[in-house]
Amino acid sequence: MARAGGGGRDLTAQHFGVVGGRVAVREGDTVVFPESGDPDLRAALAAPELNPLISLGRDAWRAALEADGSRVPLSACEPSLPVRVRDYVDFYASEEHATNFARIFRPGKPPLNENWRHIPVGYHGRASSIVVNGTPVRRPSGVVGPGEFGLTRALDFECELGFLCASPTELFGVVLLNDWSARDVQRFEYQPLGPFLGKAFATSISAWVVPLSEMEGAFVEPRPQDPPPAHHLREAGRWALDLDLEVELNGEVISRPNPRGLYWTAEQMLTHLVAGGAPVGTGDLFGSGTISGSEPGTEGSLGEIGRGERWLADGDEVVLRGGGLGEVRGRVVGA
Amino acid sequence: MARAGGGGRDLTAQHFGVVGGRVAVREGDTVVFPESGDPDLRAALAAPELNPLISLGRDAWRAALEADGSRVPLSACEPSLPVRVRDYVDFYASEEHATNFARIFRPGKPPLNENWRHIPVGYHGRASSIVVNGTPVRRPSGVVGPGEFGLTRALDFECELGFLCASPTELFGVVLLNDWSARDVQRFEYQPLGPFLGKAFATSISAWVVPLSEMEGAFVEPRPQDPPPAHHLREAGRWALDLDLEVELNGEVISRPNPRGLYWTAEQMLTHLVAGGAPVGTGDLFGSGTISGSEPGTEGSLGEIGRGERWLADGDEVVLRGGGLGEVRGRVVGA
Repeated sequence: MARAGGGGRDLTAQHFGVVGGRVAVREGDTVVFPESGDPDLRAALAAPELNPLISLGRDAWRAALEADGSRVPLSACEPSLPVRVRDYVDFYASEEHATNFARIFRPGKPPLNENWRHIPVGYHGRASSIVVNGTPVRRPSGVVGPGEFGLTRALDFECELGFLCASPTELFGVVLLNDWSARDVQRFEYQPLGPFLGKAFATSISAWVVPLSEMEGAFVEPRPQDPPPAHHLREAGRWALDLDLEVELNGEVISRPNPRGLYWTAEQMLTHLVAGGAPVGTGDLFGSGTISGSEPGTEGSLGEIGRGERWLADGDEVVLRGGGLGEVRGRVVGA
Repeated sequence: MARAGGGGRDLTAQHFGVVGGRVAVREGDTVVFPESGDPDLRAALAAPELNPLISLGRDAWRAALEADGSRVPLSACEPSLPVRVRDYVDFYASEEHATNFARIFRPGKPPLNENWRHIPVGYHGRASSIVVNGTPVRRPSGVVGPGEFGLTRALDFECELGFLCASPTELFGVVLLNDWSARDVQRFEYQPLGPFLGKAFATSISAWVVPLSEMEGAFVEPRPQDPPPAHHLREAGRWALDLDLEVELNGEVISRPNPRGLYWTAEQMLTHLVAGGAPVGTGDLFGSGTISGSEPGTEGSLGEIGRGERWLADGDEVVLRGGGLGEVRGRVVGA
């Protein structure tokens, strides 16, 4: 039975996930376990992760969305991590975030490095630290100064989009991503090799992946780039996503970021990886970087909202949601 | 049948690898396919990667080394990548390398950042870029300046040790590791988030893993650390490895590095990861960072040997070998 798809802002759009060790399709408050007579698709749908389905390509994705099967209420489901991530990259595509953070981390220096408008700057994260929506986040320890080891006193969230790759030339879908960060650890460790253990203890993603085919209603012209980047990147800058996101802290909405203002697009990030010779395969994940706007109330991290003076306490719960992407929730627990 | 083990410098020491899709033990010029009556060990030995064997723990490693089985000459074997690497980290543990590179990349600034003597500085690399000994390395392209995209003109090697983890508290074994680097790409991209695509196209490791139990003959006192690092790191600095390595370029030995002079030890690197909350599991790999000594002729990269003016050409072949670790070989091929 064919079911109606929706735009990216439509909460009834179809999402892929994994429930009870097999592939599931969420449709609003209902979860369908699609069935298929095709042996390859049937095997992929029986897997405890989306990777085999993603490998089969877009016709299989469409077939899985259109297939019928047994249905259960969403409230009866406990989805697991939907994808086995091979390599995880985090980009840094928001000019406002990069500028805000440079003011905190490198006061008095130019906020953007020379490279920032020429390439999507990024770094590799720790794939095994990726956890699904709802997983508690334990406050990490780290070295925060010379000889000074202890629990982080500067725990932060970062509101991002995560993009799942199907192949070097194709994206599969989108999740919400919270790149939890220990800012004091990060600040001490990050020069010259970049963020490391300050961002390697947990990265939360939403349990339901929205296929890109279901997000076309959210496609908008990307922000103009000045100066224009190298040719291959220019060609890839075809769409941005207009999604009204919100960040909730302990039940109160504290920010409303929207990724439409990101300087670099998801296709540019994928193109940059591939053009640079990085192997890109099924289940690779990259984050957009923290999504911060220029208006107060649109910052994507607590560090920016609190200007480096307010951080997460044990027991705090952060929820990122919106844009038809469901939510990613996590509570900080003491060590 | 029990076989004699050897010290780390002994070329007849036993090494683990994967040949023809199953676990193999190299003993000099002979390769044994060990057999076992124990069902768990038998299953692990039949796997196309060492991960299941590593998971079984050190008694199983010992049993596999001592087990007999069919034998073939090494020359008849084509070993594959021995381990499925989940997360790959590269450290930066040689003071001489860090100092030499800072002079090239950041002339006029203090060569070591404030953090360098307090933590083993490192970053995450791209796990899917890890390839086995003998794999050709394609010259990558990248953005090397504003609007400037093209083939790297500054291709380099890095002579390192790679350490394979068994668990958060135990190392399994050691490989030789060549962290191929595109220095022009790296130089343009690395601030502020660290090396990214300049080091994500290929990292070669030797096909045979020397278990740490076979390397005790190479254990020496590590270099003194001043100032002493935080307590948990101080406790972990128990041994360094005294291994006479050599770097061969097109048949000529151009450098003889030895990791005994590294400032940070492998156990300190593992401790740093675990204490910082990073999940560490079977098959995780970390590199020591380029091994460079203070004497001319002991530098671990061509950038240091040629002082930033000599780089690899298409057709060049680099071999790292020695210390009882076998070799890791790679030839540069044009794009």
